[in-house]
Amino acid sequence: MSENKPLTKLSTLGEFGLIRHLTQDIKLKNESSLKGVGDDAAVLDYKDKKVLVSTDMLIEGVHFDLAYAPLKHLGYKAVATNASDIYAMNGTPRQITVSLAVSNRFSLEAVDELYEGIYLACDHYGIDLVGGDTTSSQTGMCISITVIGEANEEDIVYRNTARENDLICVSGNLGAAYMGLQLLEREKVVFKENPNAQPDFSGYEYILERQLKPEARMDIIQLLKEKGIKPTAMMDVSDGLSSEVLHICHDSGLGCNIYEEKIPIDYQTFKMAEELNMNATVCALSGGEDYELLFTTPLDAYDKLITMEEISIIGHTCAKSEGYNLITKDGNSFELKAQGWVNFNPSEEK
Amino acid sequence: MSENKPLTKLSTLGEFGLIRHLTQDIKLKNESSLKGVGDDAAVLDYKDKKVLVSTDMLIEGVHFDLAYAPLKHLGYKAVATNASDIYAMNGTPRQITVSLAVSNRFSLEAVDELYEGIYLACDHYGIDLVGGDTTSSQTGMCISITVIGEANEEDIVYRNTARENDLICVSGNLGAAYMGLQLLEREKVVFKENPNAQPDFSGYEYILERQLKPEARMDIIQLLKEKGIKPTAMMDVSDGLSSEVLHICHDSGLGCNIYEEKIPIDYQTFKMAEELNMNATVCALSGGEDYELLFTTPLDAYDKLITMEEISIIGHTCAKSEGYNLITKDGNSFELKAQGWVNFNPSEEK
Repeated sequence: MSENKPLTKLSTLGEFGLIRHLTQDIKLKNESSLKGVGDDAAVLDYKDKKVLVSTDMLIEGVHFDLAYAPLKHLGYKAVATNASDIYAMNGTPRQITVSLAVSNRFSLEAVDELYEGIYLACDHYGIDLVGGDTTSSQTGMCISITVIGEANEEDIVYRNTARENDLICVSGNLGAAYMGLQLLEREKVVFKENPNAQPDFSGYEYILERQLKPEARMDIIQLLKEKGIKPTAMMDVSDGLSSEVLHICHDSGLGCNIYEEKIPIDYQTFKMAEELNMNATVCALSGGEDYELLFTTPLDAYDKLITMEEISIIGHTCAKSEGYNLITKDGNSFELKAQGWVNFNPSEEK
Repeated sequence: MSENKPLTKLSTLGEFGLIRHLTQDIKLKNESSLKGVGDDAAVLDYKDKKVLVSTDMLIEGVHFDLAYAPLKHLGYKAVATNASDIYAMNGTPRQITVSLAVSNRFSLEAVDELYEGIYLACDHYGIDLVGGDTTSSQTGMCISITVIGEANEEDIVYRNTARENDLICVSGNLGAAYMGLQLLEREKVVFKENPNAQPDFSGYEYILERQLKPEARMDIIQLLKEKGIKPTAMMDVSDGLSSEVLHICHDSGLGCNIYEEKIPIDYQTFKMAEELNMNATVCALSGGEDYELLFTTPLDAYDKLITMEEISIIGHTCAKSEGYNLITKDGNSFELKAQGWVNFNPSEEK
């Protein structure tokens, strides 16, 4: 957008004008999208597939801070994190609806940037935007997305179906998004004290991207299919590894052993944690927003799994009576506890 | 809830505890609801039916005022207005997801009241709550509901399929919800000036209920089916009659003649309008939130329609070149214009 042009007030378009402006270029991509935006409801055709539905709400000041989250990235992230929930069922996301509340302080150009990110993610994940709601708010921005996807019944993977002595695996690496957030928070404080200071992100591009523009692991779902591995249980890691491992264990009536040395952590995550005097393992266990896939498989998938670069075997399930154990690098065993990112206070954890 | 018991802070439960508390008593009613709350996504089975999806966001201070909207009614209304969108496609709502953002000023008991209303409406309309998100907000309350429903392909009624010389019909009566809102606003002003004043709603119970606890017209959809009438186009009246008639006309490439004397208006709406020195027809045309069904039918349905008490024939479609006409009681013709409730300023309209 041009720096010289005055910004357009949302009120000049009205609600219907805004919806038209935001949706006029949509071309439906999926066979299952019969009718998108423009009627009382969208019409979808899922034939003999099962329908998967998930929803997420993002609130300004709680889930994002526009001081450092560019609107385009925010739009992208909102779609990607929803898509992640469908992949976590071993399904394919097909449609989203987007409800948006914005106050008068947002211009049309700002809303356009948000939607640019939304449409970019839709293209990347093959999703159609088929409906939504646009309204005013008195204060901050609120985004609510519902994602609809499909799966064959026999392919769906739940959380409560892990079995005893399954391998526990995770894709990619953990803790990076949380370290990216810490870096952004640190630079925000610096900027507040000295508005002329330039943020210094060099060497930390990866953890920043993990925070600002995470991807849903569509590739892992495809990879597992290609290799003929169907997880016994699966979910995505949005609240930190501990919390999610405990979800699968509780729901499946099992215990677990997780090995600290096996938890995948990127070099930049280690480096940033060191700089901030934090423990990288604690960040991986409780940091959240990784959007990696956590899953269990039968033992006999081991030979295939160890050849897959993007997957780490971090432990195994066991009888519930054995408890939830984190075995540290020095061989001690601690009870795995869910902190979740909300209550996460790393200074107490070290 | 007992007046003597101290209220429970939401923070004592945490996000997962709150979700468990709010959803633990759910019993899925619909065959199509395979898996509800408790995994990354709900799993639905729509077999050979088409899937209908619609979404709405309600923001405190914009769509509702907790000074006079009881939380239980608000929850009921949020579900009913979403269900209305599915009926407006001639479909049946089956599932909802509910995303809720609340600030610390809400207690657990307050959120329980909201959900009591949500579950009451779910029971009334035969809907399963299958997912959602619960989060904190920094200021007001924000509710986003997505409703999923079903229809046979041949039963679906769109907005853009009205034909020339169709009858234009509407269910129930119009303007009552808007008059109920005016009454509530008036009593709020009185209360602000004198907190000891008791609100005086006697004789206006009907318009209050239309504002606070509207119903989706499930009964009209069933009635039309029984009578063998399939509308050619349909939508629900949420933004006022004018706006919706123009939607159907624009989308179908038609004009219309609407007769003022045929517009159904309740006695209490007339009385309240008179008391407030407003024009009841203008309230019906632009008031909004009626959630009645507006639909078109072929001329030959006339004999059946006039026997149906809850349905009024208010005009007919015509060629686009004839324009959008409101024929007043005294025989004058005016161009029908959409005000929508947002910009509705009745004092300028009279």
